[in-house]
Amino acid sequence: MSPVTPTPTAELALRRATDDDWAGIWPIFHEVTAAGDTFVYDVDTDEATARSWWLAPAPNQTWLAVDGDGRVLGVYILGPNHGGPGAHIANASYMVGSAARGRGIGRQMVAHSLDEAGRAGYAGVQFNAVAATNIYAVKLYLDLGFETIGTVPQGFRHPTQGLVDLLIMYHPL
Amino acid sequence: MSPVTPTPTAELALRRATDDDWAGIWPIFHEVTAAGDTFVYDVDTDEATARSWWLAPAPNQTWLAVDGDGRVLGVYILGPNHGGPGAHIANASYMVGSAARGRGIGRQMVAHSLDEAGRAGYAGVQFNAVAATNIYAVKLYLDLGFETIGTVPQGFRHPTQGLVDLLIMYHPL
Repeated sequence: MSPVTPTPTAELALRRATDDDWAGIWPIFHEVTAAGDTFVYDVDTDEATARSWWLAPAPNQTWLAVDGDGRVLGVYILGPNHGGPGAHIANASYMVGSAARGRGIGRQMVAHSLDEAGRAGYAGVQFNAVAATNIYAVKLYLDLGFETIGTVPQGFRHPTQGLVDLLIMYHPL
Repeated sequence: MSPVTPTPTAELALRRATDDDWAGIWPIFHEVTAAGDTFVYDVDTDEATARSWWLAPAPNQTWLAVDGDGRVLGVYILGPNHGGPGAHIANASYMVGSAARGRGIGRQMVAHSLDEAGRAGYAGVQFNAVAATNIYAVKLYLDLGFETIGTVPQGFRHPTQGLVDLLIMYHPL
């Protein structure tokens, strides 16, 4: 008998979100944002604003990580980081609900977003605001080939750690 | 008789914009944006979108450089660079109409914006997207104490020079 290897994300599927998926996205958005320790969004961002950002029209894309029962465990967005002469570089953001963390969903979403960004013709993916205290995310991004191209000193006001650095990260495609 | 020193900006005044000022701002916005060589905006950005960015509600501010006849020669915006835990760092953008360039208006506006950012309680001013080819602006920003904290390689598609670097600059307050 061969050893049993846990395959915690075996049932996970990644698919594009539709308007009907908002009800599965909003609880994750709200939980992550309200914590105030990772995103540069107001902690009490209202649902309409959140929806305008996380179910934005093309060329923006929203992708979901769903389990075998169709439950939304994670969500990411991908779109141009700037307009006009800067629109060939993508930006992406990722959220995983607290109940689904530690299962590699974030890693799967980041890897998937790099593939999708390449498919969409972007020349690179840039993160504008990664809290330096978000060490799990920073390590993951570095593992997947991002590099820190800039640091805004004390650019993030962490709810318990005070002013910490905000990293700008980039991955060429 | 003392030598005459040119004082090309002697008549210039800086004042907050009101809704009624849009007619003076739009021609400058459109001229600068349509050139496609400095801003990461779509070159054909429509007037309503432009207004939502450059006459944005508080805490965003719009300031005008006006001559002795009240004509708008330049405009700048100042506001939080990010939301929530990143809102203590400001962002600012500046535009001068082509007919008024070379008179130090840009320098006056940048210096003024640093004062205003300090007055508003920001901890620093960040530029997210300065085309490296915009050498006049880069030199001006460095002169006034900004430093380049990051470079997005080939992050800007210049209309005649092709892909050039996009600089991220920062000035602590």
